[in-house]
Amino acid sequence: MRPSGRDVNQMREISIETGVTRHAEGSCLIKCGDTHVLCTATIDTRVPPFLKNSGLGWVTAEYGMLPRATHSRMNREAKRGQSGRTKEIQRLIGRSLRAGVDRVALGERQIVIDCDVIQADGGTRCASITGGWVALRLAVNKLIKAGDVLSDPMTDHVAAVSCGVYGGQPVVDLDYPEDSEAGTDANFVMTGRGRLIEVQASAEGATFGREELTTLMDLAESGIAELVSAQKAAVEG
Amino acid sequence: MRPSGRDVNQMREISIETGVTRHAEGSCLIKCGDTHVLCTATIDTRVPPFLKNSGLGWVTAEYGMLPRATHSRMNREAKRGQSGRTKEIQRLIGRSLRAGVDRVALGERQIVIDCDVIQADGGTRCASITGGWVALRLAVNKLIKAGDVLSDPMTDHVAAVSCGVYGGQPVVDLDYPEDSEAGTDANFVMTGRGRLIEVQASAEGATFGREELTTLMDLAESGIAELVSAQKAAVEG
Amino acid sequence: MRPSGRDVNQMREISIETGVTRHAEGSCLIKCGDTHVLCTATIDTRVPPFLKNSGLGWVTAEYGMLPRATHSRMNREAKRGQSGRTKEIQRLIGRSLRAGVDRVALGERQIVIDCDVIQADGGTRCASITGGWVALRLAVNKLIKAGDVLSDPMTDHVAAVSCGVYGGQPVVDLDYPEDSEAGTDANFVMTGRGRLIEVQASAEGATFGREELTTLMDLAESGIAELVSAQKAAVEG
Amino acid sequence: MRPSGRDVNQMREISIETGVTRHAEGSCLIKCGDTHVLCTATIDTRVPPFLKNSGLGWVTAEYGMLPRATHSRMNREAKRGQSGRTKEIQRLIGRSLRAGVDRVALGERQIVIDCDVIQADGGTRCASITGGWVALRLAVNKLIKAGDVLSDPMTDHVAAVSCGVYGGQPVVDLDYPEDSEAGTDANFVMTGRGRLIEVQASAEGATFGREELTTLMDLAESGIAELVSAQKAAVEG
Amino acid sequence: MRPSGRDVNQMREISIETGVTRHAEGSCLIKCGDTHVLCTATIDTRVPPFLKNSGLGWVTAEYGMLPRATHSRMNREAKRGQSGRTKEIQRLIGRSLRAGVDRVALGERQIVIDCDVIQADGGTRCASITGGWVALRLAVNKLIKAGDVLSDPMTDHVAAVSCGVYGGQPVVDLDYPEDSEAGTDANFVMTGRGRLIEVQASAEGATFGREELTTLMDLAESGIAELVSAQKAAVEG
Amino acid sequence: MRPSGRDVNQMREISIETGVTRHAEGSCLIKCGDTHVLCTATIDTRVPPFLKNSGLGWVTAEYGMLPRATHSRMNREAKRGQSGRTKEIQRLIGRSLRAGVDRVALGERQIVIDCDVIQADGGTRCASITGGWVALRLAVNKLIKAGDVLSDPMTDHVAAVSCGVYGGQPVVDLDYPEDSEAGTDANFVMTGRGRLIEVQASAEGATFGREELTTLMDLAESGIAELVSAQKAAVEG
Repeated sequence: MRPSGRDVNQMREISIETGVTRHAEGSCLIKCGDTHVLCTATIDTRVPPFLKNSGLGWVTAEYGMLPRATHSRMNREAKRGQSGRTKEIQRLIGRSLRAGVDRVALGERQIVIDCDVIQADGGTRCASITGGWVALRLAVNKLIKAGDVLSDPMTDHVAAVSCGVYGGQPVVDLDYPEDSEAGTDANFVMTGRGRLIEVQASAEGATFGREELTTLMDLAESGIAELVSAQKAAVEG
Repeated sequence: MRPSGRDVNQMREISIETGVTRHAEGSCLIKCGDTHVLCTATIDTRVPPFLKNSGLGWVTAEYGMLPRATHSRMNREAKRGQSGRTKEIQRLIGRSLRAGVDRVALGERQIVIDCDVIQADGGTRCASITGGWVALRLAVNKLIKAGDVLSDPMTDHVAAVSCGVYGGQPVVDLDYPEDSEAGTDANFVMTGRGRLIEVQASAEGATFGREELTTLMDLAESGIAELVSAQKAAVEG
Repeated sequence: MRPSGRDVNQMREISIETGVTRHAEGSCLIKCGDTHVLCTATIDTRVPPFLKNSGLGWVTAEYGMLPRATHSRMNREAKRGQSGRTKEIQRLIGRSLRAGVDRVALGERQIVIDCDVIQADGGTRCASITGGWVALRLAVNKLIKAGDVLSDPMTDHVAAVSCGVYGGQPVVDLDYPEDSEAGTDANFVMTGRGRLIEVQASAEGATFGREELTTLMDLAESGIAELVSAQKAAVEG
Repeated sequence: MRPSGRDVNQMREISIETGVTRHAEGSCLIKCGDTHVLCTATIDTRVPPFLKNSGLGWVTAEYGMLPRATHSRMNREAKRGQSGRTKEIQRLIGRSLRAGVDRVALGERQIVIDCDVIQADGGTRCASITGGWVALRLAVNKLIKAGDVLSDPMTDHVAAVSCGVYGGQPVVDLDYPEDSEAGTDANFVMTGRGRLIEVQASAEGATFGREELTTLMDLAESGIAELVSAQKAAVEG
Repeated sequence: MRPSGRDVNQMREISIETGVTRHAEGSCLIKCGDTHVLCTATIDTRVPPFLKNSGLGWVTAEYGMLPRATHSRMNREAKRGQSGRTKEIQRLIGRSLRAGVDRVALGERQIVIDCDVIQADGGTRCASITGGWVALRLAVNKLIKAGDVLSDPMTDHVAAVSCGVYGGQPVVDLDYPEDSEAGTDANFVMTGRGRLIEVQASAEGATFGREELTTLMDLAESGIAELVSAQKAAVEG
Repeated sequence: MRPSGRDVNQMREISIETGVTRHAEGSCLIKCGDTHVLCTATIDTRVPPFLKNSGLGWVTAEYGMLPRATHSRMNREAKRGQSGRTKEIQRLIGRSLRAGVDRVALGERQIVIDCDVIQADGGTRCASITGGWVALRLAVNKLIKAGDVLSDPMTDHVAAVSCGVYGGQPVVDLDYPEDSEAGTDANFVMTGRGRLIEVQASAEGATFGREELTTLMDLAESGIAELVSAQKAAVEG
């Protein structure tokens, strides 16, 4: 029995509201249950030094949590510097989103995706990837509309979900009470066509077998299909 | 003529929505026109070292801006550290809110107010004070309800507004286009009874005379009265 | 009764000694009673990046305290980094001095004012502004003499004093024993012609009314007139 | 054809030399081809704050690279601070090794594993895990011999290998020339009994399908079996 | 011929003014020609952690330069952190002064010597040691007078001078023009009885022979005797 | 009697193995008894900013210790930043090696010497200089062979040894047990021809006389002659 009463393969309610800030070239507020992440996309004509005059574009991400997004207040990273966990997450988001972009077609420009967790209830990195893709899509649409890119640089959807073994049972889309108790914790990033971008599965307390990983991947596949539908609805809305 | 078409003494539309995050003891999303700040209050049983065993309470504040809250993206402070401007603002918020609290009645505990700017259009520090007070009020209400404090430690409302000389004309509640052009820029923090907590007036380009300061203070007084009404409606709602 | 026995409108003894270091383009040691600040001005041909090729000059300030300038020793900021208070003060000094400078006439160069507190007894930021102006004036005189600027870029004197409500009584030029007990603390920065550059009034413990602010400003006006006379004597001496 | 001429399922030559430093409670120099990592284990009676008086032990890891371990010299992290990549790797090493330890049986003490890359040719994080386990095993042996722990806290071997899709072909134990060209890059951490501890598979340029992941995992399983044999020989030697 | 016209064995004019700040337990302004250093001593009842409950005292030093103490302005270390040079110098000052103190007789307390260079013209570390000793002596005198220490913990004078080979000629007490051109640069720290505490001789451009070191040490011995006389006059004055 | 049983003038066993890492232009592992330091030389075509377009070369050094190189584990400097001791040592290594290099003949390029202590038993800075010279020699040999420099920029050998007064007796080449007890501690850096590059002698507990320094220097001279022989054997081997 899951704490939320959900079925093992039941995702939390997904909501993606676009255009939530005035200034960003693309933005959305994604809600996966009680996990709320504000994602914005900024188009920058400058690329990182290693891409200067390469003709190639870049997509990068930064991640943060408001101090009281969590049950008890965390230290503000602006005062202490980014933790290892934060750096790890933002590297994952950037890498995942780049896997859905043709960097030649994007041209020599950078798009920065900011993912800021307003409220946390597990799965913030996955929500950031799923919402970050929407913000990116909207920003690229502006580039297309303005004629700044000639062919669409986005090759597919990118979305992510966490799965885990909770109470001995593989389940999809862990919330915080499940996440903190799960014996195995796995994040899957996939494209709209079901190709894998990233698999991160980690034993927490108990090791796991290959068959369990297979079950978790099955759960992820169908969960990500739902997320991709929500992305479609949001950007077409 | 103001860029927004407002009268010289006309405030932007004010909206204060409370209870916007699950975890915080008090929270609100304050909107002063296009300036949106999320304010949360966290009750902490630990006080700063200098108050250990003093029996006195403390209220402190932290302030941040999401990187793309502004027209062009700013660097994330978690990566670079807090700027002097940020530190100055959060010191002001904390000092202002403490002026409305009886620290003996609060007892030896700390309340941390986090003010995070989701979208910026001028006046973010004033909105943070006005919204921060609401979050603080709601958190203290919880303490009262739980019997953790015996008499109400909050002595009055605290709210703030910026005024300035724009195009030679004193006006209230500057938005960003006005703020960036104003010859003089002033922030006023006042109590519900109209007592002054903080006056910060600064020449930007042109110096100012005492009579101009008087006019700006008149404008602030009536603007702050509106903000206090909005606070009342929010916490009583 | 003030701890020092001074009248409510009586300034501390002011002394400004110029030319106190060999290397700086302008320098002075300002003493306001037991508050001693060494101010130097450095002319730099490089301007901050945002002014490159603008033709405009810049004046900026840095502030520090020797660790044992105070009653008990403070941590050395070189080991811990600058505090929020330090950053706030040096921003104020720079902003105040720029208000007395025509940046077009100054031309594309930067003058850096260093204010280092040798001994502290209250009012260090005000003494830094008053003494910083003298150092700036002397450095600009060198530029004029050398023909590097054609018309005098300095438009007026800039000086500052703190006032406060001590024992219920508004008084001018707070020393440390008054400053640490004052119910309201206000810093005024003015030009030689009595125009306002900056007003910062802050409730410490007790809020204040508009009439009190008026009295404090009256005290400041006459105090600043004395400071401006001392500046004149120093630079003409 | 692999650059090294190895078969797709052929590991690099493995060598694990133990007792390589005088001071550490356990140590080894592991060589996986041209990747050389010095691993030491330090027993510390103090545990992290969150484990004080819990009776539970802890295993943690730190990772570094000598500046000229790589083809071109990297900046020394002691001068710049640890990169996100470094923090990510040392979190992985610690998490992996903890999965092979019974923290109750270990008792309230901490073992710190230092993994310092002397020479790098791909796969440094995997070599660090495999060698780190040997250092840990040797340190725990000392605790057992001294009677400081009563039952063996180590539940199984832990070892790791990287696999990837190089030139369209899944291969095991990537060296640097392969790693920098691989379309997919995966790290597997497993126990001696073949249970999974961590799977990290990442698309680099090209996405991958589930069947490819299966092939990579097959390769990893047999590679890790070889590593475990080398561990056994090293600690029994 | 020395730039200053001094003889090879001629020291710069020495002046040591004591009691120059109100707050410190001991203080002096030492001038060695145009090198001016403000030295203060602070008595602290807390010792560093490694001396807790040892009954032993400690003397430590911190060193800084005002940004415009030098010919061209240096970056403020409070903004950038202490340089390697600064850390090296303050370690030397502390080590040198401890060599003249009986730490048992001092008792479990710490004396912090702050040496801040107001104006620099070569030899700032030596002036800091010589002046730092005077500040220390005065602070210890207070402890003796107050009965806080029973026997005098200071065993001898400590003073320092730099010598060097300038234009092929060994000379004493280098000023900046000599220091920047010297082929060999040596700092000597000695006690009042002529015992050595520290010798630091360094080839700058040209190596040196043992006989040259002997000549430099002869020069240092007689120079330090003059400094010790100046210390005596200052503390007895 | 020395703890190791060595005679007062007996060096520890010296071993210098070259070519120990694949990537560096020059490298060696130097062992002075139980002190083991890995030294690498990296040729960089970029020089520090102050040498741009000067035609002059530069040699610099960085120094580090693996956390468990010492008896009890030290904090990793990558996490805390370099200590004052580390910065002091690497400045010494760089300065010493530059004294043996003709920077005109080297041409406008930089050679970076990395000295990383694998195992420490006293004398790590001296071993770093002696081994660093070997790495530098090998890297310069490559430049000569490639015709990148026309005449040999290395003017002589550079080597270093520590001496000290242990148990009242001057001895050469201190190991850790001696170093931690020595009354005086001295490091000597010399050329192959016996010229002095650096002398650093420091009283630890007891001051010292000139005659003692003379004895220590005699010991150093003969010890360094042995080190230079070992360098010759290593680079000619």
